[in-house]
Amino acid sequence: MSQAVRTTERQVTGDLYAEVRTFYARQMRRVDALDIEGFAETFTEDGEVLHANGELAKGRQAMVAGMRAALPRYRDIAVRHWFDHLLIEPAGPRDEELRVSYYSLVTRTDRAGVVTFEPTFTVEDVLVRRDGRLLTRSRVIHRDGPAAV
Amino acid sequence: MSQAVRTTERQVTGDLYAEVRTFYARQMRRVDALDIEGFAETFTEDGEVLHANGELAKGRQAMVAGMRAALPRYRDIAVRHWFDHLLIEPAGPRDEELRVSYYSLVTRTDRAGVVTFEPTFTVEDVLVRRDGRLLTRSRVIHRDGPAAV
Amino acid sequence: MSQAVRTTERQVTGDLYAEVRTFYARQMRRVDALDIEGFAETFTEDGEVLHANGELAKGRQAMVAGMRAALPRYRDIAVRHWFDHLLIEPAGPRDEELRVSYYSLVTRTDRAGVVTFEPTFTVEDVLVRRDGRLLTRSRVIHRDGPAAV
Repeated sequence: MSQAVRTTERQVTGDLYAEVRTFYARQMRRVDALDIEGFAETFTEDGEVLHANGELAKGRQAMVAGMRAALPRYRDIAVRHWFDHLLIEPAGPRDEELRVSYYSLVTRTDRAGVVTFEPTFTVEDVLVRRDGRLLTRSRVIHRDGPAAV
Repeated sequence: MSQAVRTTERQVTGDLYAEVRTFYARQMRRVDALDIEGFAETFTEDGEVLHANGELAKGRQAMVAGMRAALPRYRDIAVRHWFDHLLIEPAGPRDEELRVSYYSLVTRTDRAGVVTFEPTFTVEDVLVRRDGRLLTRSRVIHRDGPAAV
Repeated sequence: MSQAVRTTERQVTGDLYAEVRTFYARQMRRVDALDIEGFAETFTEDGEVLHANGELAKGRQAMVAGMRAALPRYRDIAVRHWFDHLLIEPAGPRDEELRVSYYSLVTRTDRAGVVTFEPTFTVEDVLVRRDGRLLTRSRVIHRDGPAAV
């Protein structure tokens, strides 16, 4: 039964890869446009985000409230989230979920065009399908720290 | 006819996703190598680029002339264009075009290895197929600014 | 026989594109976690890396030794390798190899969260398939320099 051991290395199809990347392309356009409600709608109603600082936003309403409170910080900058190295793994009893992890780099461009960077992050999502569309059910954001050597 | 409403969210196949990414991988290698003529050939003969500063280059010849005039600015740096979050949407009466938008980050590495950044951009392209190959017919480059809050 | 001329522009399938990107997603997680042995195992036993400074690591053992010697440099930083613009081309007499080239950006985030950058690189790999899994057989890393103008 060596196949069972390889479950987590099952091949991702090109179609699924493109679908997941497209999902994030839309989700990130919304958060970067500060379209808070639109961003929250890319999560399930009970979706949650565990931020790198330990704060947990549970449910769309909490997510919207938290983001609204943070808006003043974005008044004069254009934020962009860049992703790389997606790992997509079907999960759940009937593969109805996707575990997706990825690297994330965040740029902040001010009005003068000067770009600064947030620390890099690694993110772990669980995506689910509702009426054929992908939604994020949970997100855990890790701030990257030095590896143990 | 709820299907019609979803037209813009039609699923991109893995094959098309890979083809478009490969197209840009080649196009960006040419522009970053300052292969101006080679870069212009990835556009249709009447292709155009609307730059973020409002300048319009209309047709391959204008594109080449504009880039040649800008060459001195690149004498001592290695420029690289980085893309992310591609959204690919078939368009035109018979889906013969692709509307593609993406994030773009531009690095400039000097001879000492120091990396600086241009402001971030969002780009909107229309790609068409000629003899089976993709070409850019139009490009609109937007410099990212703060979102309205 | 104009087809023959186009060999190097053969279309990459979505499935292959996703497989290669997933391979690198795993390989980069290992190197960025300083999992030196795990990283070396993503190469063939006789795999080699030609670094941008001219140093050649030949075989997994040499690779591990070289990386172990460099570990002190990574004590206080989180390194992340970001890839873009992959070009994937089947090669070898029976397409049993893949030539893959890509852009690489390397971030270094210190404990305070400050991000700095290594010079940008372009990398040329040869990947082979062993027991169904991809492995890197050779890697040539080029530091990006100004293009000839």
